Parts: sequence; structure tokens; C-alpha cells
Amino acid sequence: MSYMKLIENMLKGQKRACGKLITIVENEPEEAEKILREIHQYTGKAHIIGITGPPGAGKSTLTDKMVKALIKEGNKVAVIAIDPTSPYTGGSILGDRIRMQDLALDPNVFIRSMGTRGHLGGLSKYTKNALKVLDAAGYDYIIIETVGVGQSEVDIVKIADTIIMVMVPGLGDDIQSIKAGIMEIGDIFAVNKSDLFGADRTATEINMMLDLSMDMERRPPVVKVVAAKNEGIDDLINEVREHINYLKKSGKFEERRKNNLKLEVVELIEEELRKIVISHTDKESKLDGEVVDILNKKKNVYEVRDEFLGKLNRSPN
Amino acid sequence: MSYMKLIENMLKGQKRACGKLITIVENEPEEAEKILREIHQYTGKAHIIGITGPPGAGKSTLTDKMVKALIKEGNKVAVIAIDPTSPYTGGSILGDRIRMQDLALDPNVFIRSMGTRGHLGGLSKYTKNALKVLDAAGYDYIIIETVGVGQSEVDIVKIADTIIMVMVPGLGDDIQSIKAGIMEIGDIFAVNKSDLFGADRTATEINMMLDLSMDMERRPPVVKVVAAKNEGIDDLINEVREHINYLKKSGKFEERRKNNLKLEVVELIEEELRKIVISHTDKESKLDGEVVDILNKKKNVYEVRDEFLGKLNRSPN
Repeated sequence: MSYMKLIENMLKGQKRACGKLITIVENEPEEAEKILREIHQYTGKAHIIGITGPPGAGKSTLTDKMVKALIKEGNKVAVIAIDPTSPYTGGSILGDRIRMQDLALDPNVFIRSMGTRGHLGGLSKYTKNALKVLDAAGYDYIIIETVGVGQSEVDIVKIADTIIMVMVPGLGDDIQSIKAGIMEIGDIFAVNKSDLFGADRTATEINMMLDLSMDMERRPPVVKVVAAKNEGIDDLINEVREHINYLKKSGKFEERRKNNLKLEVVELIEEELRKIVISHTDKESKLDGEVVDILNKKKNVYEVRDEFLGKLNRSPN
Repeated sequence: MSYMKLIENMLKGQKRACGKLITIVENEPEEAEKILREIHQYTGKAHIIGITGPPGAGKSTLTDKMVKALIKEGNKVAVIAIDPTSPYTGGSILGDRIRMQDLALDPNVFIRSMGTRGHLGGLSKYTKNALKVLDAAGYDYIIIETVGVGQSEVDIVKIADTIIMVMVPGLGDDIQSIKAGIMEIGDIFAVNKSDLFGADRTATEINMMLDLSMDMERRPPVVKVVAAKNEGIDDLINEVREHINYLKKSGKFEERRKNNLKLEVVELIEEELRKIVISHTDKESKLDGEVVDILNKKKNVYEVRDEFLGKLNRSPN
């Protein structure tokens, strides 16, 4: 099927067409550009929610329950789940995805897993492209759910309009130390499994950390939930809505979108320039010889850089 | 003190001068380039060991014991510890560092902590620069120790000649799933705390995973250690040496170094080109206006990219 026909069907709300388009924008850069040029006019309406937090925090269950609550209100919801895929594993992650299968059959829900494997460092671009397709397809909410706490996942979550940081009682010091580095990005904090011992202490600790941050324009709320028992989900969704209102009233919504777009344009320009650099340095294996000179101390990396830049008709400064 | 004098003192083996030079190459890009051009001729001798694995695996203790064993053999050893620093935390990490203080006083040991905070995405460049200073300063072994399992840390560890993946019994499924994604990068597997229940099972599991990987030219060894009791450290160091021999005999040592250098040159060229892109797009806030056009659907990101590339006198393809 031509991609124009696919776009037509996707705009009509066909999930299959939507899925096929995402596969194309993930795998075929040239086709991706054609498709994204075409659908740009239909984008910009979806609200993007990022769900992140340490492993074991129950993010999948929380996502599951949020999706159910949102569709009950009449919304169309899409989920992008970021998996640290590997040929060696499967287990618990696969289990989570299977649990979501009942939702996948709902006509107002679209679920997609994306593996970090093979996209190292570049996953955020593919995710952005997939988001645009889902946005054009008319999903009111798009939830990006990460599995771990890696840097590439933090980058992806930054694409979101609202970021929910999921915590749980008693994760231990090591996990807490990882968590700390990404604490700053949360717009809303959810303490999941808050029927467990230590939940109040965890909530208090998070509140204390947030109070210590003096430079926040908006103090993120801390919401206690028990996703497995569907408790506190409505409170969480209310906080998401409050955050959307805050973003729109304060002008931050447009500001965030503008900054993301700027970044995207700069990245696209850089990508083209990178192609030029690679075609120049690969020519007749020129770089291979230069590298031998560097190893033999005849030249240093900066000298080699300046030679190539000279050839590109660009001065280094 | 001028940087030439600092280099002179660093080459004489003064730790203070070495530390000051690292601070400069971390913080002052222009000075960094001058220093690195100057010391390039003295680099290329150190063997770089990366130590990674899930949080709680005891990597700091293992590093500590390896350093002690290596200096006992008459080596000079440097350690770069990558910390997920945050204003919110301190606790266990700080404890580890303090424990290493006795080593820090040894004239043949150099210890440096580097925070991931503030260097997001770009830490590997700073680490590479620090490595070059330590290499020129005559450290025989440079150990890079990571605290977590984030992507940026994986990138850093890839700089290493030999990567030790530290595992422990009973980390639970969630941690195992994170682990899986980075399993492939280990040259040597160390099962730490192997006096604990389940150590044999963990070692067996790792061996099974490794046996499943058919495409490996060299089957990584699995070494059982109890770092806290100094057990198995010599075996581990022997395996490091075996790996060095393997790398040198097979030509992989030179191959890895060449590939890393190529990547470095390409990154340096891209960095200069990025400066040009940013200076063009920032001019008279040109990009701000374009972004508004994108939001209003008058243009799409690709059209804006092509306009800027046209101005840079570059065609997109």
C-alpha cells in the first residue's frame, strides 16, 4: 500500500495503518521524511505524558490503570513502552506487556513497544517520529513509559509535556542514588504501592527534597497511589490536568514545544552535516591513514580535524 | 601556573599538577585543546579497565582491592569514578569514596571522581580528555568505575580496553533485565560476593548466557570473587592480563584504538560544524520566527532545515 493511502486510513482512525506508518518512520529514513512532511498539518493536539522511575516501581501497572481511566472518560490513548530489549532476556518485561493485551484490543487504545537495542543514543528521534504519527492519528493522550532509568530514557521522557516520576517505598540506597540524578525532571511524583510499609516515609522524603529545591516556579505535587488496586488513579489524572492548565496559563506549554522544535531543527541540520562529514572522511579510507599517523604521534587529533574542516571549506573557529 | 609548567610537572609524576590539568581539560575547552595537543606524544601506553554492573554489585570495593593488588606489583594506577551526583544525595556513594581515601595518599595511586550531573550526554568527552592526561602522566593502569547502569556510563566504559562486568547473586528480576542490555559489552565477568547463597547459580546463569552467544570470537571468562575479603582478586587480574594478551595478539588492541580515534576525529569535526549551525540559527533569533511558522503549520521542520542548509551553502543530500 502506498504511504499516501496509509496516511488516509490512519487519519480515518485505522489502527493498522497507524502501526504500519510507525514501522516505516522507525525504519526507513527517506520514507519517514515524506510521511512526516505530509502529516505535519494534523499534529500538535495530543498531550504527551512521560512515566519514569526506578525498576520495580510498578510503572507498567500504573500506565495500564491510567489508560483505563482515560478511555472511560471518552479519550483515545496511545502508549509507547520503551523496553531494554536483549536476546538474553524476556521474563518480567514480557509478562507486563502480555498483561496489557486486553487493552490492546480496545479501539481507542494503541500500544507500541520500542526496544532501546539497536537505537542506542538515537532512540529519541524514532520516538519523536512515532509520536507525530500518533498525534496526527488523533490520540488525545500519548503515554511514554520507560522501563529503567538510563540516560537515553531520560532524554525520551523529556519530550513529554507532563512527566510523572514513579517511586515506591523501600527501594534501598543504591536505587535511591540513581533516582536522585533524575529527580529534577518530575512534574508530578507518584508514590506507588503506598499500602506498603514505609510509604509515608517515602512521600515525606520526596516532599522534603522538593521543598529544598528553592528555584522551582511550581512545586510538583506528590500523589499516593496503589496502581494494582486502582487506588489514587483519579487523583493522579487530576494532577495531570492541573499540570496541563498550569502549562497553558503560564505560557510554558508553547515555550516547551518551541524549544523542542528548535532542538529538532538543529538536530536535523546536524544530521545532514554529519552525512557530509562521513562521506568526506570515508572517501578512499582517508581517515584510516590519518588515524595511523595519530597513533604514531606524527599528528594529533586536532590537526586531523583541522585538515578535514579545511577541505570542507570551513575554518575551525 | 602556566599550563606548560603544569605539563612539565605532570610528566615528572606530580599528582597535584596532574589533578590541575584534569580540572582544566574538564572545564576549559580552549585550554583543553592546547594541553591535549601538547601531551599527545606521551600518550598511548596505559591499559584502560572499565568496571561496570548493576548498583549494589560492590564495584567500588572490587576497584579498591584491584588497585591494591596492582600497586603491590609495582604499577602506577589511576581511578576515575563516575558518580551520578545530585544535590539531593550523598550517602552510600560518599561512603565508598571515603573508604578509598587511604589509597588516595599512595604516591602511585591517583583517584578522581567525575559527576554525570552537568555533563549529560557529553561526559564521555571529558572522561576521554582526563584519560589522556593520566596516560601521559605514566599510569600503567587506568580504571574507570561506574556507579549505575545508565547509557552514558555504558558509553564511557566502551572507551576501555578491558571491560569487567560485575554481577552478584540475587539481584532480582528487575535488575537482571537492565543487566541484560549491557551484558554484551563484558570482556570478563566477575561474580562478586560469591560467598553468598546463590553464587553458583548466578555463575551458571552467566555461563549459560555466554554459551548462547554463538557469534563471539572469544568466550569471556567468569571469575568468582569476594572483594570484601580480598578473595579471587589475583585470578581477576590474571584474566585482565590474559585479555590484554589476547587483544594484542589478535590485532584487536590496535583495531579498538583506531576505531576510537576515528570516532573521536569525527566527533571533533561535528563539534565545530555544530558551532557553525548554532551561530547561523541564532543570528537575529532567526530560528524563533521559523519555529512559530512550524507551530502554525505554515512550514514543516524539513522545510526549515533545508532553508538553513541552503544558507550554509550545503545541499541536504
